[in-house]
Amino acid sequence: MIERIAILGTGLLGTSVGLALRAAGFQGSIVGWNRGAEGAQAALSMGAIDSVGTDPLRVACRSQVVLLAVPIFATLDYMERLAPLLGSEHMVTDVGSTKAKITEAAGRLFNTPERAAFLPGHPMAGKERGGAALGDANLFRGAVWLFTDDPSWQRSPHSAERVKGWREWVAAMGSKTLDLEPARHDELVAWVSHLPQFVATALSALLEEEVGAAPELKDVGGRALREMTRLGASPYSMWRDIAYTNTEAVEATLVALEQRLAHLRENLRTLALRDEFEQANRFRRE
Amino acid sequence: MIERIAILGTGLLGTSVGLALRAAGFQGSIVGWNRGAEGAQAALSMGAIDSVGTDPLRVACRSQVVLLAVPIFATLDYMERLAPLLGSEHMVTDVGSTKAKITEAAGRLFNTPERAAFLPGHPMAGKERGGAALGDANLFRGAVWLFTDDPSWQRSPHSAERVKGWREWVAAMGSKTLDLEPARHDELVAWVSHLPQFVATALSALLEEEVGAAPELKDVGGRALREMTRLGASPYSMWRDIAYTNTEAVEATLVALEQRLAHLRENLRTLALRDEFEQANRFRRE
Repeated sequence: MIERIAILGTGLLGTSVGLALRAAGFQGSIVGWNRGAEGAQAALSMGAIDSVGTDPLRVACRSQVVLLAVPIFATLDYMERLAPLLGSEHMVTDVGSTKAKITEAAGRLFNTPERAAFLPGHPMAGKERGGAALGDANLFRGAVWLFTDDPSWQRSPHSAERVKGWREWVAAMGSKTLDLEPARHDELVAWVSHLPQFVATALSALLEEEVGAAPELKDVGGRALREMTRLGASPYSMWRDIAYTNTEAVEATLVALEQRLAHLRENLRTLALRDEFEQANRFRRE
Repeated sequence: MIERIAILGTGLLGTSVGLALRAAGFQGSIVGWNRGAEGAQAALSMGAIDSVGTDPLRVACRSQVVLLAVPIFATLDYMERLAPLLGSEHMVTDVGSTKAKITEAAGRLFNTPERAAFLPGHPMAGKERGGAALGDANLFRGAVWLFTDDPSWQRSPHSAERVKGWREWVAAMGSKTLDLEPARHDELVAWVSHLPQFVATALSALLEEEVGAAPELKDVGGRALREMTRLGASPYSMWRDIAYTNTEAVEATLVALEQRLAHLRENLRTLALRDEFEQANRFRRE
């Protein structure tokens, strides 16, 4: 039974996990830590955490489950620092949007019979803006929570039990879970998550240049324009590490879309445009 | 006072105009015509029109205001056929998404003291799927309704009065109106409407190729993916004429986006990525 959870990073995701755990009936303690004190206080006042720790490593050591809800390079850094401090009674998990580097580190630093378990995780949920104040107990309801667990890892029975317990809490928060190989994960999310984000960023940046000076013209686009640029509000701070740790897969998706746009552009007056619309219609059919 | 309106084409837009006019208190008659009989019957049963005409030209001749709510080339065709039949007591307007060709025809065929007025219009509202059944009395609420009226046109006092009356009904349907030069209109909507549509189409078509065979993987993308591909459901039949009549402006926006995506791709690991996110953030700030 998991009774003590530490959430390192009480931004949007960390705070939402705390709220969702409580909504799902988690009765144990949730200690939070955040680099900026106001984020931790906000999570505390919202009831996502019970108390705020002063030192992230100490908070982690005193918990059974440690959730790293920080950017990817910060996650990798905590993994290095936590591995020697934690033992087979602990498990650590994360919410990072790319999994190859984190899963490699998890195999190297954790998941032996003597060490803590590390379950690499990635909830496919978020908002275009971050921060504890936007935390939402229902953020994970209906979402897919991906794992890149490695069945060959030799965990202690104790930490394996914690992993099982955490998976049950993820289901209780309303998410469907799906296990993928780390390389497959990174390739898949490049298509269905990173590409849509980078397209929205490029489109928004371009439109800012073209019509940004005339705010009344933005209204002209209506709902379609608002939807296609909503993710343009996403912060660089969240996406920098993703771009850096999934560069090749993202490059491949961008090249493919550039070619697709060029093809469409060259066929604005031919029947190939019909084929393109029909292919797009099929994607939305199911 | 406008008392008899004809709606030629009772698809999504035509039906929604009928419903919105009724909701705004229009008491006169609304006669509808549609190429497919089921579309006209649906509009009739929804109360968007009072009766269904059997011949579109006769329906038009018996009305004071004629709304052409058909694709662009069909609109141009009706303009040619209606101009000699209508007189200075009539006005005609349309909902076409490109305005250069239609406004040119309006100046050539209408808008003399002896002929009917033609007010080129474009409500910036729609849905990713068409058809009378999706008609919505609130479709135009909060939307911008563009006009490319030409102040140099010499209309009869009668038809000028009709134009003024129609503009008042557009406002009563809840739209803000904005007058633009036709070339400027087509360039602007290429950026804020056509480009977002073609991007959604290309992205959806590409994703159908990459992950379409595994429907469970579509769920992974969540809300962001759904939003960025919603317009992928838009039918070719609606966009063919737009692509054909605004080719150059759309080409320019697509080239610009292709270059922007290439720039982003080449800078996934540099600080230029931060500049791109910050520029995109600015577009979403106001």
